[in-house]
Amino acid sequence: MRKIVLGLGISLDGYIARPDGAVDFLFMPKDYSMGPFFATIDTAIMGRKTLDAVLKMGGGSSPSGGGMATYVSSHTEPPGERDGCTFVNESPAAFVRRLRKRKGNGKGKRKDKGIWLKGGGELAREFLKADLVDELYIGVVPVLLGEGIPLFPSGFPQRNFALVENKTFSKGMIALKYKRVRSKAKRKS
Amino acid sequence: MRKIVLGLGISLDGYIARPDGAVDFLFMPKDYSMGPFFATIDTAIMGRKTLDAVLKMGGGSSPSGGGMATYVSSHTEPPGERDGCTFVNESPAAFVRRLRKRKGNGKGKRKDKGIWLKGGGELAREFLKADLVDELYIGVVPVLLGEGIPLFPSGFPQRNFALVENKTFSKGMIALKYKRVRSKAKRKS
Repeated sequence: MRKIVLGLGISLDGYIARPDGAVDFLFMPKDYSMGPFFATIDTAIMGRKTLDAVLKMGGGSSPSGGGMATYVSSHTEPPGERDGCTFVNESPAAFVRRLRKRKGNGKGKRKDKGIWLKGGGELAREFLKADLVDELYIGVVPVLLGEGIPLFPSGFPQRNFALVENKTFSKGMIALKYKRVRSKAKRKS
Repeated sequence: MRKIVLGLGISLDGYIARPDGAVDFLFMPKDYSMGPFFATIDTAIMGRKTLDAVLKMGGGSSPSGGGMATYVSSHTEPPGERDGCTFVNESPAAFVRRLRKRKGNGKGKRKDKGIWLKGGGELAREFLKADLVDELYIGVVPVLLGEGIPLFPSGFPQRNFALVENKTFSKGMIALKYKRVRSKAKRKS
């Protein structure tokens, strides 16, 4: 089964961006590489607001890249291909069901590669509500922003995870990998 | 100078407690000990709501312990000693100035020990606003709660930190230590 990996960089107080969408506080440590992560995925999905931010930051360059099939979830934009992306307006559950049926992006043998949930927080919440997030891959930079756009806005049920990896990189970025544990949540009270 | 250490356990989405104050999701790994941390501090300060939660959870036992001088910050309760705590209603800056002048809790030679900011989020925000947090000592458990009381509610200026320690403990708890870096924040935009 193709896994859905929520993968993002955040501040120590959990923000993926400043209130205006700026991500200047994030950085890529010299000793860190996204390569191993990219090798495990072939498809990306992001929310429409995140696409807007990517387009704004990227100076108009394509938000897709590396041969990745890129989907944009939007409740307002019409579905279809443009800007190198495929707009969809299904529920996360329906979208993922369709994507999993498709098995990979159709290019070669990559039939079991993961699907990268690139954000933002609102789409992450929709996916978490539907319990569709299988893994978390989070880079935490050592800054408290004090305000911004949260990766995990409130409003979804408890989801338990198991820590798979915790690595420290230069300039104090830590990379955390978790996998979803779907056994029943043990709440004492 | 006596350091102020904001030290707390949180969920992966940054909550110190569930909406009702319950902290059942937090746990103490077998291979983890608060001992080394306790050895560096001799004074604790918490917000009044945190005291109420501690008293509720603890079944009426004293919120202070280990010979630690315990202060409770409240804007509504009258100042003075009761329940083994000293209630204060000064600003964080005035309180810390006074505490630092006092040098330790007066018991023996512990003149340079740290001050433990035990929470909650509202008091943490007041301290961060006043730039009084020198260190962070955060335990992160591998669960997304989806709702709760945040450690870092929004509403304070950016504060940069440097990672000092990142350790993994059993059951996937990670313990992170940061120290405040007070050089001017580098914001590109």
